[in-house]
Amino acid sequence: MHIGMFESFVTRHWFNSEAKEAWSDVATLQAWLDVEVALANAQAEVGLVPLEAARRIEAKADAGLFDLERLSSDIAFAQHPFVPVLHQFEALCGEPAAGFIHWGATTQNIFDTASSLQMMKTHTLLTGHLDAAIEALCALAARHKHTAQAGRTHGQHALPMTFGFKVAAWVDELDRDRRRLAERCKDSFVASMGGAIGTYAACGPLGRAVEAGMAARLGLQPAGMAMRSSYDRVNDYVSALGLLMGTVEKIAQDVVFMQRTEIGEVSEAFHLGKVGSSTMAQKRNPATALLLTSLTRLLRARIPAMLASMVRLDEGDSSATNLCEALLPEIAIIGVSVAETLAGLSRGLVVNPDAMLRNLDVSNGLIASEALMMRLAQTMGRHEAHQLLYDAAQRAQTERIPYIAAIEQHPLLAAHQLPENWAEALTPQNYVGACAELVDDAIERAGRQR
Amino acid sequence: MHIGMFESFVTRHWFNSEAKEAWSDVATLQAWLDVEVALANAQAEVGLVPLEAARRIEAKADAGLFDLERLSSDIAFAQHPFVPVLHQFEALCGEPAAGFIHWGATTQNIFDTASSLQMMKTHTLLTGHLDAAIEALCALAARHKHTAQAGRTHGQHALPMTFGFKVAAWVDELDRDRRRLAERCKDSFVASMGGAIGTYAACGPLGRAVEAGMAARLGLQPAGMAMRSSYDRVNDYVSALGLLMGTVEKIAQDVVFMQRTEIGEVSEAFHLGKVGSSTMAQKRNPATALLLTSLTRLLRARIPAMLASMVRLDEGDSSATNLCEALLPEIAIIGVSVAETLAGLSRGLVVNPDAMLRNLDVSNGLIASEALMMRLAQTMGRHEAHQLLYDAAQRAQTERIPYIAAIEQHPLLAAHQLPENWAEALTPQNYVGACAELVDDAIERAGRQR
Amino acid sequence: MHIGMFESFVTRHWFNSEAKEAWSDVATLQAWLDVEVALANAQAEVGLVPLEAARRIEAKADAGLFDLERLSSDIAFAQHPFVPVLHQFEALCGEPAAGFIHWGATTQNIFDTASSLQMMKTHTLLTGHLDAAIEALCALAARHKHTAQAGRTHGQHALPMTFGFKVAAWVDELDRDRRRLAERCKDSFVASMGGAIGTYAACGPLGRAVEAGMAARLGLQPAGMAMRSSYDRVNDYVSALGLLMGTVEKIAQDVVFMQRTEIGEVSEAFHLGKVGSSTMAQKRNPATALLLTSLTRLLRARIPAMLASMVRLDEGDSSATNLCEALLPEIAIIGVSVAETLAGLSRGLVVNPDAMLRNLDVSNGLIASEALMMRLAQTMGRHEAHQLLYDAAQRAQTERIPYIAAIEQHPLLAAHQLPENWAEALTPQNYVGACAELVDDAIERAGRQR
Amino acid sequence: MHIGMFESFVTRHWFNSEAKEAWSDVATLQAWLDVEVALANAQAEVGLVPLEAARRIEAKADAGLFDLERLSSDIAFAQHPFVPVLHQFEALCGEPAAGFIHWGATTQNIFDTASSLQMMKTHTLLTGHLDAAIEALCALAARHKHTAQAGRTHGQHALPMTFGFKVAAWVDELDRDRRRLAERCKDSFVASMGGAIGTYAACGPLGRAVEAGMAARLGLQPAGMAMRSSYDRVNDYVSALGLLMGTVEKIAQDVVFMQRTEIGEVSEAFHLGKVGSSTMAQKRNPATALLLTSLTRLLRARIPAMLASMVRLDEGDSSATNLCEALLPEIAIIGVSVAETLAGLSRGLVVNPDAMLRNLDVSNGLIASEALMMRLAQTMGRHEAHQLLYDAAQRAQTERIPYIAAIEQHPLLAAHQLPENWAEALTPQNYVGACAELVDDAIERAGRQR
Repeated sequence: MHIGMFESFVTRHWFNSEAKEAWSDVATLQAWLDVEVALANAQAEVGLVPLEAARRIEAKADAGLFDLERLSSDIAFAQHPFVPVLHQFEALCGEPAAGFIHWGATTQNIFDTASSLQMMKTHTLLTGHLDAAIEALCALAARHKHTAQAGRTHGQHALPMTFGFKVAAWVDELDRDRRRLAERCKDSFVASMGGAIGTYAACGPLGRAVEAGMAARLGLQPAGMAMRSSYDRVNDYVSALGLLMGTVEKIAQDVVFMQRTEIGEVSEAFHLGKVGSSTMAQKRNPATALLLTSLTRLLRARIPAMLASMVRLDEGDSSATNLCEALLPEIAIIGVSVAETLAGLSRGLVVNPDAMLRNLDVSNGLIASEALMMRLAQTMGRHEAHQLLYDAAQRAQTERIPYIAAIEQHPLLAAHQLPENWAEALTPQNYVGACAELVDDAIERAGRQR
Repeated sequence: MHIGMFESFVTRHWFNSEAKEAWSDVATLQAWLDVEVALANAQAEVGLVPLEAARRIEAKADAGLFDLERLSSDIAFAQHPFVPVLHQFEALCGEPAAGFIHWGATTQNIFDTASSLQMMKTHTLLTGHLDAAIEALCALAARHKHTAQAGRTHGQHALPMTFGFKVAAWVDELDRDRRRLAERCKDSFVASMGGAIGTYAACGPLGRAVEAGMAARLGLQPAGMAMRSSYDRVNDYVSALGLLMGTVEKIAQDVVFMQRTEIGEVSEAFHLGKVGSSTMAQKRNPATALLLTSLTRLLRARIPAMLASMVRLDEGDSSATNLCEALLPEIAIIGVSVAETLAGLSRGLVVNPDAMLRNLDVSNGLIASEALMMRLAQTMGRHEAHQLLYDAAQRAQTERIPYIAAIEQHPLLAAHQLPENWAEALTPQNYVGACAELVDDAIERAGRQR
Repeated sequence: MHIGMFESFVTRHWFNSEAKEAWSDVATLQAWLDVEVALANAQAEVGLVPLEAARRIEAKADAGLFDLERLSSDIAFAQHPFVPVLHQFEALCGEPAAGFIHWGATTQNIFDTASSLQMMKTHTLLTGHLDAAIEALCALAARHKHTAQAGRTHGQHALPMTFGFKVAAWVDELDRDRRRLAERCKDSFVASMGGAIGTYAACGPLGRAVEAGMAARLGLQPAGMAMRSSYDRVNDYVSALGLLMGTVEKIAQDVVFMQRTEIGEVSEAFHLGKVGSSTMAQKRNPATALLLTSLTRLLRARIPAMLASMVRLDEGDSSATNLCEALLPEIAIIGVSVAETLAGLSRGLVVNPDAMLRNLDVSNGLIASEALMMRLAQTMGRHEAHQLLYDAAQRAQTERIPYIAAIEQHPLLAAHQLPENWAEALTPQNYVGACAELVDDAIERAGRQR
Repeated sequence: MHIGMFESFVTRHWFNSEAKEAWSDVATLQAWLDVEVALANAQAEVGLVPLEAARRIEAKADAGLFDLERLSSDIAFAQHPFVPVLHQFEALCGEPAAGFIHWGATTQNIFDTASSLQMMKTHTLLTGHLDAAIEALCALAARHKHTAQAGRTHGQHALPMTFGFKVAAWVDELDRDRRRLAERCKDSFVASMGGAIGTYAACGPLGRAVEAGMAARLGLQPAGMAMRSSYDRVNDYVSALGLLMGTVEKIAQDVVFMQRTEIGEVSEAFHLGKVGSSTMAQKRNPATALLLTSLTRLLRARIPAMLASMVRLDEGDSSATNLCEALLPEIAIIGVSVAETLAGLSRGLVVNPDAMLRNLDVSNGLIASEALMMRLAQTMGRHEAHQLLYDAAQRAQTERIPYIAAIEQHPLLAAHQLPENWAEALTPQNYVGACAELVDDAIERAGRQR
């Protein structure tokens, strides 16, 4: 019986397999055991537990040796998520090592540290796919740095630009997202071994040294102050993921529009056998871009609950940690899946420069009004030039007459002379500004970070 | 490999089994097939498809006959969630019936109608547990309708009341939640067969009759206007679930507070073997109430994304339907689980009237200030009485002197005479107002609805 | 100094003036006073306060008599939002009436009941504008019930339909929203006079009669159970507003797309002097539709915080009531503004049937693939017909050859005969299904409710 | 007529005055003008506009010279938020300078850059109050670094600790919040002058130099890539504010609990005249902490809408910028107000060490179970020690017998010997771990950052 979006046959393929594996039951149990091993070894080093006990603990710390089904039912009975794990682990280790497992620790220490390990792993997966997406988009931007396209604001043609410029803006934002995630993961995912309330009491004066030793073994920073009642760190990374989601949904939305039947400027990769509809045979939907939109929203929907989970009773609060135990794996898996899906979309995007050109010309020059305004402004000032062209452009649209005619007939021209060859300013391709340089710069910046 | 909160060994037991089953892959596939059967039969009745074809379709509409693993990989390849189902179904039915499956339908019609069926089933489960919770709480309210307890506002003692009154307020709100859910499910979960964009074109003039016939066979109302681009109906029910979550989290928070070590007025059911901590042997945590808080937040977190999914491109938009395919089962399962967990909490609650009394007396009469104010107000007006008692109460707290002394020493008393036996007004138990009648009324209302 | 979106010169005009007035300081104070008057009169009737006191209280209950600036600074000092109001009111009434103001009430009773009055007023405003919007859209639907337009799903042409059908779907959803709001306001906005914690203790055995009398005077239902710790009722209405926001944002998004430069199927009302850009003279933006999108999101953003405010400590909790005091007026004002803006958009919408026709033909018949499939299905079954047209349609798109040619060249045709005049099925206008009837029905339903 | 939470007489005092002033109409207009001045000067420097024009523009760039009422109505008519400002500004400057205002700029450039200026100002205000809060809390932590208090998890006594340790955890988290905000403001608030779609076309090859010159004059970084369609930067800072809100709400919740009537461990500053209730004279509510909770939620509620505003149509989208124009000032003002209110709360907090001691002893030693377990574990292993104490502690609670007796009677003791003086381990004060060192470290870290 499969239940839940990660395993359902309808939606399973939305999600990255490696990320799912990193948060599977077996991987979670293994992460817990890895933390217990690091703890025992760190304690053996300072003499808190016997070295042989630590060795024995390490030798048996294999999720494959556990009975997961029994764990599940014992957990339900104990209403505690970890004590049954300890019982099986103790039985595996036997005496006297069993008596030194989980020495001075509280469950939440193990869970928080293990989830740091899993998040670090997920971060690596995510970064790989994000790098691939940025690389593909850089190539696309380079290839189309001079491909003219209509720039649009508020859904209306605004100014001419190039398709490369549009892609470069995507790249630049993704690159900032990538940088943020990289910068934050070290501080966000720490090792925590302060004990039940973070006072390090159970290990006596050696408590903080134990935490440091354990952290070093796991490749993490020590928490110092307990994170079970102070959960800003993880949320800092999650917030950065939230920004990435915004970036990706924006890109996805741009693709959906550019693939619109009437627009046709780009289209997603298509293969025979990809089906758009069970009833409309002709359909080629931007299914990947639309899925990306869904995925980014699924992740973003979880952020407010994560942020609210920072508000925790006193020194520990399972109403908050329960939440994170459910949400964090979901966020991690969705995050990687978004990056992977974006990389696929980016690699497969088919560009149609002809359609871009056709759409650019649809307004017969109106799109380059600003170019002409800036030329006229030299002699009549920006404000008068704007007024003149506002009148002419609106008249052209209302009365459906050519823009050029409407300009020539404008009464303000009695006072001012049109500059020579003024109509050339209305050729969209002549007015793409610094698009090419901006493309080069964005690619260069993105290259520097890798 | 188990992934996701519904199946993970750590959290699996948080969730109601029947609700999970109702949204498992097999149940979802079966619901789709049930809709196809109702469609074929409705079409056979009006002569759109041959009766034998409909019979054959019905005979083969058994999820157990499908290869779910292959479905899953075919869906990934086609990037379409239903066409591979049709292919297997066609093969099962054979010619010529295969040619009449899914006649005039679009995938979303099947999905939306099937999820209506699943939501109706979930609604029944939820209602059962909610009824049980309300029943248990009614019994609790009745039992404690005279058990005195401190009423509190803003975290401070306010006025005396009874514990039964507190529970009655929970009951009343739950009862309103129950009524809302019951009222809305009929309109929220409809059958939709308008075809690809809702014009009923594929079935010609018979389209609407087909939808009505199909709906009747499934025990649903026909949609009339297509719901794939107009998704307010489902969200109306989901919003009512959101209100239930608020009610339950409020109750859970009250329980957590009343079980506080220093308060001790109630405690959750405890059994030997229930573990509070891997390191603190003494712990008896309000684990169920804290879990309820987590569950209600998990559900509420999904509401904004559901509401946003009402905003759909044109006549259909997979970025929105994808979302609902992921969110709706989660919402349904969490909803039932909340109701079941609440019922368990309600049945098991242990009440400690002695602690209530001890806490009620902790302020030495300050809690009944209003009672005295209302008595004094008869002679000196409400405003002066308030001023006098404000001064005395604040002085009593600041200088740690008895309230009664502070009142007697107040200069305003020079002008006014204290009524006889005035100090009796400060006995908390005398000032619980209409608590008992309110309990009776709430129980009576709740009884009426069942 | 103007601060905040309702008063800032940049955004002031986004918001409905009457709704702002209904929640201005003066109106709020007046609502409080109105509740105190109803309370005093209800108490006078049952003999709890002297009739002359009630009359005096009524005579002085005029917000115009209060010093608002002093109120504001006294409130800051007392850190209490109402006691300073009482002091001014007492001074206005003089002795002995002053002593009978606010008899047995707590601040939250007054605030909750007053906000019920203000919400009822806002509801009336909102309904008026919503009615106007629906009326305008009904007229639009009727006018264009046969105007052919491309139906689109997932951003791609799907099937032909009529513009009237699209508008009818908007109407139907708005009509359901309107019905929900109307049904809920009575139960959502009640009068509450249970005293500090809802036990009616302060008025002795007459407490509930007083609440009923006060409620009747204000045209509200009595709360029965206290609403200050049980806030589902108001949130029920707010949730229905949330659904309306979804509907309106969907409509707005449709308009933005249809006004796209390349699409041009509709455009917002334009007047000379409406400016699209400070630099691009030609711009005619769908500014109203885009603003509607912003407004609906501003409202929806507040819903999770409102829902969370249901979770209240014990019998009263200012952390929750503070929230509602800030959010509810905002929600009310934005709600009315959305309805008003939608009415304006609806009335002004300019339709361009020529553009609709041009766009409908852009795919050279692909859009009516389903029509042909259903015709072919008669002889070859739905599944084979779908396969044939899938192959042909995809080939037509990939190889850029005519759809008709691709069909004729398909190998499956060796086995099956094309029906006569088959190509007619590809004429979009012939395949709009039940659009006209659906328009008529939606208009009829909407008419019934008014 | 005052409307909206910032100006309403009920809630006005919740909000910091300077922050409100920084976002008042006058300040907003002035910020726009300041950007226009920096633009003109940067353009004059590179020869794009005459130096005299720039000087004239600078001379007239004074919000005090504008007619704000007329602006407001002109904006409503033009449905454009800035062109009417330009018209008044042009009139103020006169010819020929008027013709050089806003040269090559688009409205959104001005707005985005101006809001960067206002955010920088707000950031400074916020930081000041946050510093003050941290300083006050450091002093509190130092003063109580040895004051014993019950540590609590899941609402139950867990382990002993000191009050200073609790405060140190607050300090540490606030300190991380402060660092994040400081680190992000430079990258989050940039100057943007790329023109209508970010191509720098209007200023020709000098566009990027103009942006850099303008930025330098305003003390900001140049955007490089346009931010009007790429809004991650501002949201990065807003996300960090979201983290701060979580920290503060956690602190506020702790205070509310510790001030509970039965707990009494801390209380907010009180002054005579501060009123807790209009009917309950005795009330001393944690009004400030509860208000803090409300304020943090008001801010957090706005984050999802801000994040969603990153999703913008194409090269510019007023549906998103409208949102930010409404939300950003609110977020800024609430943010500063939270910091100011926290500083006030922190400075005024009254600590009651006696109550802490009383509560610590309430469980008769159960709270130090772990201490005894760690001592027993030396001889019998951690697991057996836990089992023994689990049995004894649960029996003590169920049968209400002394913990010590229950331990002594446990059958496991037949096999193991209790260490000498074992009962001393149950003295809570002996088991506070590294509290004092953790306090010192947190204070030291916080000191380093200032």
